[in-house]
Amino acid sequence: MSRFFSEEYADLDPYTPGEQPRDGVYIKLNTNESPFPPHPAVTEAVERESRRLHLYSDPESRELREALSAATGLKPEELMATNGSDEALFFAFLAFCSRHTPAVFADITYGFYPVFAQSARVPFREIPLKADLTLDPADYYHAGGTVFIANPNAPTGLALGRKEIEGILERNPYTICVVDEAYVDFGAESCLPLIREHDNLLVVQTFSKSRSLAGGRLGFAAGNPDLIQDLNTIRYAVHPYSVNRMTAAAGIACLAQEKYTQENCRTIQKNREWAAGALRRLGFILTDSRTNFLFARHPAVDGETLYRKLREKRILIRHFSAERIRDYNRITVGSRAEMEKLVAAAEAILKESR
Amino acid sequence: MSRFFSEEYADLDPYTPGEQPRDGVYIKLNTNESPFPPHPAVTEAVERESRRLHLYSDPESRELREALSAATGLKPEELMATNGSDEALFFAFLAFCSRHTPAVFADITYGFYPVFAQSARVPFREIPLKADLTLDPADYYHAGGTVFIANPNAPTGLALGRKEIEGILERNPYTICVVDEAYVDFGAESCLPLIREHDNLLVVQTFSKSRSLAGGRLGFAAGNPDLIQDLNTIRYAVHPYSVNRMTAAAGIACLAQEKYTQENCRTIQKNREWAAGALRRLGFILTDSRTNFLFARHPAVDGETLYRKLREKRILIRHFSAERIRDYNRITVGSRAEMEKLVAAAEAILKESR
Repeated sequence: MSRFFSEEYADLDPYTPGEQPRDGVYIKLNTNESPFPPHPAVTEAVERESRRLHLYSDPESRELREALSAATGLKPEELMATNGSDEALFFAFLAFCSRHTPAVFADITYGFYPVFAQSARVPFREIPLKADLTLDPADYYHAGGTVFIANPNAPTGLALGRKEIEGILERNPYTICVVDEAYVDFGAESCLPLIREHDNLLVVQTFSKSRSLAGGRLGFAAGNPDLIQDLNTIRYAVHPYSVNRMTAAAGIACLAQEKYTQENCRTIQKNREWAAGALRRLGFILTDSRTNFLFARHPAVDGETLYRKLREKRILIRHFSAERIRDYNRITVGSRAEMEKLVAAAEAILKESR
Repeated sequence: MSRFFSEEYADLDPYTPGEQPRDGVYIKLNTNESPFPPHPAVTEAVERESRRLHLYSDPESRELREALSAATGLKPEELMATNGSDEALFFAFLAFCSRHTPAVFADITYGFYPVFAQSARVPFREIPLKADLTLDPADYYHAGGTVFIANPNAPTGLALGRKEIEGILERNPYTICVVDEAYVDFGAESCLPLIREHDNLLVVQTFSKSRSLAGGRLGFAAGNPDLIQDLNTIRYAVHPYSVNRMTAAAGIACLAQEKYTQENCRTIQKNREWAAGALRRLGFILTDSRTNFLFARHPAVDGETLYRKLREKRILIRHFSAERIRDYNRITVGSRAEMEKLVAAAEAILKESR
């Protein structure tokens, strides 16, 4: 830290992204990326757009929002495009939390929520998940703050139904509930259809997982036009051009290839069920994941050891050191071939450790 | 504003970007874009990289920083890549200003500075430019806060020499001086060579103007490794992946085409001098611009009228309503053909208004 650094951020504890090693080839099952490259139409659109990079992008992302509108059935003024869903989440912390309106979220959830709260200088309250890692909606009734729920949750993979979210919305009439649907396309219910009925609902989605654009940085927020306008006030005060021309073009092209996206999601779900079955047969205990990752522990080998030994075998998974989940690992669902290698490696490690 | 919006941002006054009309074809001289498209090598690099968009970008932008290192002579750890220079500036407001360390900048300068200060919830103090719109370095001695100087300044186009900036650095040993060099490539002296000598200097540059990547969103900050680490602390707490794969690839390809960039800068300088001469012959009064724009007023026609009449003739320039500069307009230097049309249109307007 330099002697000039703001004392107000001195104890900031930044987010740690999953490792991106450069020391050779790994099977990367640690950052929930898609194993499928973007559709060739995305490359074509990006190439075309790259010839116009000397001109600023449209800060309102009008064409992209029209495409999102067609895809979601929402109006363009109910939608805002952002630099990944992270940006939409950060703007929501700025717009809808304050000294008197803390952020409220689970103790085990997306690790960026407490970091965003610190960055936005707003208080936050963590509500423990149940012992089985499920989230009890009743814990969020009259939450006394802005609720952030990752649904499905990460890293547990568990999802609430739309009705359960609706119960939370109804019992928090004076505050916003942000539903972070980064993983929703892999088998959970989206809350987008609730937006017209609940003016305190903000839904956030990303193109990073199901839409194969993690390296393109595109997400969006959906909510009633007043909420979207509030987020735009923050955007124009912080980062009006955060979605560049290439990313917008990639997003539009991607939305036009919905069949490709849906096929990929089905394949991931199939690979997930295959891998979950194979790991269970090896004695692993898994949550009922509705995402593109598994969350697994084994009674015979602790989480950190499994992570380390897989890394030696050039397979990367994600281990978290937080106390309640340190027995687990989060394993991205990749291609069938990658999952077969993972299962074989896990089997070998279990044999060694007997 | 929704009933949920944070009371702490209720009086936020967001930045107004230059208009991007959709009602037909304009000669756009209002947003300081380059008239030259990016080099074809940029398109090639972007197309190649777009096939890997399913994988996250490197949050450290290592390859891009190595290319920047080769271009600037600085070490990679003295450099940070950002989503446009705006992001670097915003991070600097967060990292280096606080309740006790206000931001200090000119009353007439880049309009985003007061907005960033509000967004970061830090106080700011504006120092008036002299009556002739020049900046007196002595006004920034012992400034009692973090100094932000656009050099050359916008929208005046006027530049300080490196020695004058050095005088400011030496007289502010306890605070940072951020030198925003968005327009430096069009004929001013960069302060990059001062970084090793002054640990309180942060230089910010952009690829939006001289490097034809306004729509790609790329900028960078340069300073001693401790300052860069502070900015990275903020980045990892707000937006670790803000530079996407395509933007990083575009930046690397652009840096490899330095000759193209330099030729374009020389052409802009030539067009600027031609247009400045032609406008002076029409009676315009201009500042001595070191940028890719002119800042001009005419005794016979007020700024807002000229802006409006040019707009009717399908030429967009930028008018600011702030009191001290409302007689002026900021006119981006485009191609020679565009400048000829501008001069002809201005001449016609002056004739009409006689």
